[in-house]
Amino acid sequence: MLKRYLPILTWLPHYNRRLCGADLLAGVIVTVMVIPQSLAYAILAGLPAVVGLYASILPLLAYTLLGTSSTLAVGPVAIIALMTGAALAGVATPGTPEYLQAALVLSLLSGGMLTLMGLLRLGFFTNFLSHPVIAGFLSASGILIAASQAAHLLGVEASGYTVASLSLSLAGNIGETHWPTLAIGGGTLVFLVWVRRRGKAALLRLGLPTALAALLARAGPVLAVVVTTLLAWWLALDQRGVAVIGDIPGGLPPFTLPGYDTSLWRALLVPALLISMVGFVESVSMGQMLAAKRRQRISPNQELVALGGSNIAAAFSAGMPVTGGLSRTVINFDAGAQTPMAGLFAALGIAAVTLALTPLLYHLPIATLAATISVAVLTLVDIPMIRQTWRYSRSDFSAMAVTIVLTLVEGVEAGIIAGVLLSIGLFLYRTSRPHSALVGRIPGTEHFRNVERHDTESASHVALLRIDESLYFANARYLEDTVYALVASRPALEHVVLICSAVNLIDASALESLDAINARLKDSGVTLHLAEVKGPVMDRLKRSDFLDDMTGRVFLSTYAAWHELSRDAT
Amino acid sequence: MLKRYLPILTWLPHYNRRLCGADLLAGVIVTVMVIPQSLAYAILAGLPAVVGLYASILPLLAYTLLGTSSTLAVGPVAIIALMTGAALAGVATPGTPEYLQAALVLSLLSGGMLTLMGLLRLGFFTNFLSHPVIAGFLSASGILIAASQAAHLLGVEASGYTVASLSLSLAGNIGETHWPTLAIGGGTLVFLVWVRRRGKAALLRLGLPTALAALLARAGPVLAVVVTTLLAWWLALDQRGVAVIGDIPGGLPPFTLPGYDTSLWRALLVPALLISMVGFVESVSMGQMLAAKRRQRISPNQELVALGGSNIAAAFSAGMPVTGGLSRTVINFDAGAQTPMAGLFAALGIAAVTLALTPLLYHLPIATLAATISVAVLTLVDIPMIRQTWRYSRSDFSAMAVTIVLTLVEGVEAGIIAGVLLSIGLFLYRTSRPHSALVGRIPGTEHFRNVERHDTESASHVALLRIDESLYFANARYLEDTVYALVASRPALEHVVLICSAVNLIDASALESLDAINARLKDSGVTLHLAEVKGPVMDRLKRSDFLDDMTGRVFLSTYAAWHELSRDAT
Repeated sequence: MLKRYLPILTWLPHYNRRLCGADLLAGVIVTVMVIPQSLAYAILAGLPAVVGLYASILPLLAYTLLGTSSTLAVGPVAIIALMTGAALAGVATPGTPEYLQAALVLSLLSGGMLTLMGLLRLGFFTNFLSHPVIAGFLSASGILIAASQAAHLLGVEASGYTVASLSLSLAGNIGETHWPTLAIGGGTLVFLVWVRRRGKAALLRLGLPTALAALLARAGPVLAVVVTTLLAWWLALDQRGVAVIGDIPGGLPPFTLPGYDTSLWRALLVPALLISMVGFVESVSMGQMLAAKRRQRISPNQELVALGGSNIAAAFSAGMPVTGGLSRTVINFDAGAQTPMAGLFAALGIAAVTLALTPLLYHLPIATLAATISVAVLTLVDIPMIRQTWRYSRSDFSAMAVTIVLTLVEGVEAGIIAGVLLSIGLFLYRTSRPHSALVGRIPGTEHFRNVERHDTESASHVALLRIDESLYFANARYLEDTVYALVASRPALEHVVLICSAVNLIDASALESLDAINARLKDSGVTLHLAEVKGPVMDRLKRSDFLDDMTGRVFLSTYAAWHELSRDAT
Repeated sequence: MLKRYLPILTWLPHYNRRLCGADLLAGVIVTVMVIPQSLAYAILAGLPAVVGLYASILPLLAYTLLGTSSTLAVGPVAIIALMTGAALAGVATPGTPEYLQAALVLSLLSGGMLTLMGLLRLGFFTNFLSHPVIAGFLSASGILIAASQAAHLLGVEASGYTVASLSLSLAGNIGETHWPTLAIGGGTLVFLVWVRRRGKAALLRLGLPTALAALLARAGPVLAVVVTTLLAWWLALDQRGVAVIGDIPGGLPPFTLPGYDTSLWRALLVPALLISMVGFVESVSMGQMLAAKRRQRISPNQELVALGGSNIAAAFSAGMPVTGGLSRTVINFDAGAQTPMAGLFAALGIAAVTLALTPLLYHLPIATLAATISVAVLTLVDIPMIRQTWRYSRSDFSAMAVTIVLTLVEGVEAGIIAGVLLSIGLFLYRTSRPHSALVGRIPGTEHFRNVERHDTESASHVALLRIDESLYFANARYLEDTVYALVASRPALEHVVLICSAVNLIDASALESLDAINARLKDSGVTLHLAEVKGPVMDRLKRSDFLDDMTGRVFLSTYAAWHELSRDAT
């Protein structure tokens, strides 16, 4: 029991020197790699840069204790930072203590929800985010984030969490573009794009081993940070109006208490739920993918608890909402992390940096971070996926398109809510007109096929109707219509057999419809039979009076029904 | 085309004297019978009694032109009156011109929505009101309405649209009970209950023919109205504090124009939608049931248009929202109505009463009407249905219970919205963990059955997994988990065959999961096959790359897969 909720008890007893060495190396590499993005995502959320570091210390410890993935690395991530910023902008002004306080409340709410969902084993809840909706949401968010960074790259002011407000404020200020800032931002951007596209190949050509080349190619952002920081320090760019990180308070994260203010909690409830769901989906898909590569398994419900614990830890250590991040996790995996202990080492590394080395970050230009973010998030824009969805299903594509458009135009919350509701609505609509087919016997066999697609034999006094969907409230009436139309069109009909091989559920509404069909067919002198009713469906029907009232019989197979009924024509 | 939207063009050319005689008789009977309830439901909605008469004239003409049911009688009904009152109470004070105006706007909005839904053929939309939710809603509304009438029976003041607010204001005023009012109300109540339970039997014992006895038993309310009105007139009860109908303006309904006030329209949008849906469901189920008795058919989408037209007519003639009513329709049916022309005759009858006979209604005690309503609505409380749902399905029952409790405690809107959302949520939850079964061959046959329920033969290197549900976003991940768990538990496995006989849909999310399963099984050296894929599903799969990437084959039947794969054990 304790092991279930504290997975560390499972792996720690087997922890040895070899694992420790691998994890330590991964921890050091992750420390160096994630500092730029931690700072950047805090700024993206409208928070002071140091909050990104704070959110990369205690939350990692919490995940080490609670997590089931050996390679997942938690911390601030782009999409959650964007959603955090959008949520906080609605309740406070960036730069005020209320804004920081709201970030803590958001972390706590999100952590509480995740933990609760995990304990109640409600992981399935996130399944309602369909793949097209997630892909559309990520693509649109990538564009939104990149647009929000354009202002930092140009050195102008801009704010907003929709394409309209961002472009409006950008357009108004574009005349004030600060050229030295643009030079640094633009230069970094070009460098990073080059490294991402050609870096690994170039390093391989220099004769480096593949693994090292891959890792170094990923270090592009770190190199950019070091070079532009040195440049800014050497040229004293902060004196010339280039925005830099500036003073970061040294020392470990302070202990913070999210205040209890009913109206604030209420205002942040929906954003916290959306952040929790999106964060969990991103994290768990990442975790499952990498676990699969190593033939390991993760427990989604325990992952909810672990992410919940991480966010609660963030709330009490001056942090911000966190989740398992794509790029951090890939770095951790590539660096050879073997157990969640690597997260502990990374936490210690970042703590050491926060404790002692923050003065080194003083001259780091904001434009450099903006360039790193932009390059990172543009990979979220998944054009092939959009094209593929269009080709495969117009219905899925429409949910995706609505998500993209609303995310861009109305903001992240409206986008994802509309996407989820629309995909549920479309699914219900599709199942509300169940496919059904009249089947006939393939001569000489016991097989029955659609009479419209195959040469079959049938009898005018028997109709074999195969229903290709579970029967429930949304399609019960449609079934009635189908059967009544069938009876009206075939005057010689004496028997209707509903073949239920694809019926996995008959709910109370559908049961009433079957009752109505039975009564009405009886009035018309037609007998109703069922065939191939599945075990669980049959068990349930036995609890009602329907089987007693039914005029006909329940046949085990379509053939048995055919064999019995086709003979006794009157 | 014109005939589709004006069904009167279909039946009027064949109209003859025999039909006219029958319809005329039905029209007269309906006129007499529905006057008390029309007055009562207007009062229930917080409107002047005469509005109920107005709403029984032009709307009936509209239905005669547009309706497809030969017996449906539209007009104010209890449940819609309750919902109307609850909606109007939120935007205006009863007794003010604004309240009357809001009733017109509500009728117009509801009429517009119904017409639009009909023209767009969106009748399926109402299927989302599952039977248990409707039954629960009607039961709770019956209790609410009866509770709201208690004040009229006691002759005290009380208001509210929830059980809590009603009982609170009743409890505060119960000391002021007006005994003469209670005597009339209580007496009528006892008489009406007796007539309903024993009336028909007593009349039969007096030697009356069955049909006449049934009709006269239904005339109980009319008799009560006549007797108590005479009594009130004779004893001058209005002078002694008994509330009576009082002056009703004579004359035909005035032409009214619902005003355009954006905030009012916006506030009434959701109530109008709910009133439309509930009204349509009540009306169409009634219409379908009676049409079935006469082997006729009604067109649900044209019914939407007809009810929409009736409500728009109500909006322009000082009326209130209307729908096809249960008791009016049964009276019309029993009185032998043959075509919608009976509605026209009833409209003319009620118009004549409104024009000339309203002074006769002056002394009609409100308590009599309250007793009529109470007795009528308590039939809505369907205890056997509640018990039956409990027995059949806990899940359906929980949606019903939530609807009942919330309708009573929070009001009609909260109740029905929560019921709909919960039933959709539960359906999605049920389909999110699709049933699947490993199947094996029944020795010597081509049949395959669940290995846990039957004696079957199987091979350790082949797994035949039958999936009993459509694959879509809510259950795609669950399928992945199932397959991975299967592969992890059987080291000798070489082939996994997914049997798709019950899969009616594979959406984009599920396609991605299949892709992921295929890739992961490939890594483990296991081949993925499909079997019994349905035509439409196969057509769609061919539009994706999945079939090209799949490691295995698509078999037409499970037997073919078994035959092929069970041999080549390596």
